Amino acid sequence: MSFIDLNCDMGELPGSSGMELDAALMPYISSANIACGYHAGNENQMYHTAQLAVRHGVAIGAHPGLADKEGFGRIERAITPEEVYQLMLYQIGALGGIVRGLKSRMHHVKPHGALYHLASRDRGLADAIARAVADFDASLLLYGLPGSQLELAAAAKDLHFVREGFADRRYLDNGGLVPRGQENAMIRDPAEMIAQATSMAKQRKVDSLCVHGDGEEALMFVKTLYSALKKCNITIRSAGGTVS
Amino acid sequence: MSFIDLNCDMGELPGSSGMELDAALMPYISSANIACGYHAGNENQMYHTAQLAVRHGVAIGAHPGLADKEGFGRIERAITPEEVYQLMLYQIGALGGIVRGLKSRMHHVKPHGALYHLASRDRGLADAIARAVADFDASLLLYGLPGSQLELAAAAKDLHFVREGFADRRYLDNGGLVPRGQENAMIRDPAEMIAQATSMAKQRKVDSLCVHGDGEEALMFVKTLYSALKKCNITIRSAGGTVS
Amino acid sequence: MSFIDLNCDMGELPGSSGMELDAALMPYISSANIACGYHAGNENQMYHTAQLAVRHGVAIGAHPGLADKEGFGRIERAITPEEVYQLMLYQIGALGGIVRGLKSRMHHVKPHGALYHLASRDRGLADAIARAVADFDASLLLYGLPGSQLELAAAAKDLHFVREGFADRRYLDNGGLVPRGQENAMIRDPAEMIAQATSMAKQRKVDSLCVHGDGEEALMFVKTLYSALKKCNITIRSAGGTVS
Amino acid sequence: MSFIDLNCDMGELPGSSGMELDAALMPYISSANIACGYHAGNENQMYHTAQLAVRHGVAIGAHPGLADKEGFGRIERAITPEEVYQLMLYQIGALGGIVRGLKSRMHHVKPHGALYHLASRDRGLADAIARAVADFDASLLLYGLPGSQLELAAAAKDLHFVREGFADRRYLDNGGLVPRGQENAMIRDPAEMIAQATSMAKQRKVDSLCVHGDGEEALMFVKTLYSALKKCNITIRSAGGTVS
Repeated sequence: MSFIDLNCDMGELPGSSGMELDAALMPYISSANIACGYHAGNENQMYHTAQLAVRHGVAIGAHPGLADKEGFGRIERAITPEEVYQLMLYQIGALGGIVRGLKSRMHHVKPHGALYHLASRDRGLADAIARAVADFDASLLLYGLPGSQLELAAAAKDLHFVREGFADRRYLDNGGLVPRGQENAMIRDPAEMIAQATSMAKQRKVDSLCVHGDGEEALMFVKTLYSALKKCNITIRSAGGTVS
Repeated sequence: MSFIDLNCDMGELPGSSGMELDAALMPYISSANIACGYHAGNENQMYHTAQLAVRHGVAIGAHPGLADKEGFGRIERAITPEEVYQLMLYQIGALGGIVRGLKSRMHHVKPHGALYHLASRDRGLADAIARAVADFDASLLLYGLPGSQLELAAAAKDLHFVREGFADRRYLDNGGLVPRGQENAMIRDPAEMIAQATSMAKQRKVDSLCVHGDGEEALMFVKTLYSALKKCNITIRSAGGTVS
Repeated sequence: MSFIDLNCDMGELPGSSGMELDAALMPYISSANIACGYHAGNENQMYHTAQLAVRHGVAIGAHPGLADKEGFGRIERAITPEEVYQLMLYQIGALGGIVRGLKSRMHHVKPHGALYHLASRDRGLADAIARAVADFDASLLLYGLPGSQLELAAAAKDLHFVREGFADRRYLDNGGLVPRGQENAMIRDPAEMIAQATSMAKQRKVDSLCVHGDGEEALMFVKTLYSALKKCNITIRSAGGTVS
Repeated sequence: MSFIDLNCDMGELPGSSGMELDAALMPYISSANIACGYHAGNENQMYHTAQLAVRHGVAIGAHPGLADKEGFGRIERAITPEEVYQLMLYQIGALGGIVRGLKSRMHHVKPHGALYHLASRDRGLADAIARAVADFDASLLLYGLPGSQLELAAAAKDLHFVREGFADRRYLDNGGLVPRGQENAMIRDPAEMIAQATSMAKQRKVDSLCVHGDGEEALMFVKTLYSALKKCNITIRSAGGTVS
């Protein structure tokens, strides 16, 4: 049997319609990355998203970002390792409080947006992230880009690293992503996305596929991917889970 | 898709041959109940069994028992709820220490032998067990007999209860086990055991099936059961895991 | 020998001058209540204040408040127990993350401003606070007004409650505070404040005295109180500490 | 003001008379090192001793030893760092379970007997102990001999080390203990013991003084020391506590 994790960023959309989108996606994913109040979300949204995840048996992860709600945590800026270390501890800790209220537990951490990209390239920032995760709870899994500085930093801290792939991004021959600026960076044809995702899962190039939850189209895609993986006899399951 | 957890008591057999049996079983199960030093095992055996579990992605559980190595924790004796509460905290805590050394985490608790049976019938002792689990870590799953006093005690403490079934025990119409004293208590025909196990899994009467690991025959049975479940398209996965 | 705890709200003043005031006070207090980012503070200020506390052997507490930086968390508003429960978990958790980074630990929780006052009067909100503390870590101490609803809520959850007194507030015969609206609510004469504080400490009416850290005058008062308590042979020590 | 910690090994004497001796001592000490079931004690004794400590505001520490009840953990034997690491995790974890049942927390770890002495001389074993403490909970204090290998190992792991002194042992000029084999190893004159203890406390050569609790004479000595320290205006308080 073959396995893949489907992870999705959650608790990022405001209001009840955002909550409904999250709820609609839950049956099709295995890991939820929950925004921790810096780039999106707040304690109420975190609580409800985590509660949904518990009900659906979806693994709960912290999704910390830069403190920038306007820019949705996507704008890179100069930041020191020490600042990154502190904002990681704060946000992971905050979700840690929420999950205790749900008698549940955290499973992983995945940095968001600019923080994710900075940690892919900059070893100092990557080390700060790995150190925060290890100091908070050394049994947490850390999600990130295969071959990134974050993967090296996780290894140096003896953390479990989950290699993440994207169905809608084109890859370079060296395994890196085609930069977003380039014309062919994104895959937009659903059939091609499904083909890339199932191929990645079959070849075990990645441990987890990132899917999006921002709208009806995204939901439709996840459902299609879910069916396609089932057809290939690939079980969808959170990373680091039990073997069968 | 359908799921079942296969759990096995481990770290109970002395010496390197016991360790080898545990290692041989790991690929076929999803949850390991690790003896905590009272009825069997010690810190070294616990560490190595837990390490094996981590390597195979098998969920780690505490398997606390009465302090009685000679009787293998199987002999019932008069014991107060307070005594049970304390021996639970000690043994769960001890395994909790071991898993921190492995940068891993505990997933569940399953009482052993006489403690299991006492907790099935006696609400006071069942409450003591549930209270110990909740006070130690309210996110831990508690394994036990469906319809038992332990199930009621778990519900009263808001704990996740995992209903456990047996392939080799005959059941009464009310769901209880035929007492071991009675002639037809045990199923000895492997084909009948497999049939009962797959039927229980299909009908979702239980969340987990208990398999044994004490010898070549037991190992052979687990392998057969594993194949039979796969043929029925039933995925083997630890209880409370993620949905697919 | 006699003991009293001196607690002070910290990490609430912006910039380096705020940090300097906190640093100047540390040698004279035994417990620091650190703002958690909702009414004041952020992850950086929390880290540095907690680090100062560690260096001075001062007990670290979470000081959660309503999400209102403009109003400094002092403006009461309609809020449900569930909302209070969630904002408590978030903020306690966030400081919990910070202290893990410092290899330290949290000692207590003291609600701030409007949250403190609401929890003194409203049993539903008080219960939500006590439940959040108990679910997060049942060994944490909860600070509040003697005779308040929060004291009752803490008792119902089996939490250690620390009865807090004020040197600069006048008390009613029933032990309650003279409401801030009334003319004689505040004591402004330093000599009278010192007299009230040392008398409260001697009579053990309270476990902890709240001192302020917002300016030169406040610092001067704390130093005077510190000397006055020493003269009375009263040791300043965090609540729930060891006996001598 | 000046401070010293008085620590005492506890939960080591069998039966109700042992418990009574522990209870009689509690008012005079600030830290209790509780035997964890390997060289002495069991879950019941641990629970009751820890409960006594909570009631008296005495800091709770794990007192792990070699698995040797007959030899009371005092007989040195060949042991590997890995074995020490595992027995530390088991025993610290076990007490960790007990204190969660008491809604309390652990404060420190002090190895017992042969383990204490081995860790003073052998850096490999000392490292194993420090690693176990750090992996279990990096905020725990580690007690040991000043200038020992254990002090170096604690520093390498960034742990708080508490330097322990003895009232009844003679010291070499280099700060080491006169070996027990030598004629003048022990101080037997109570007056000399009191003089050495108060002098060590005044000069802050150590952070904690180890007192014994094994009999009427020992109790009498602790009471005398307690009074002597008070006369010198030295407050008895657990190590790492708050400043006043």
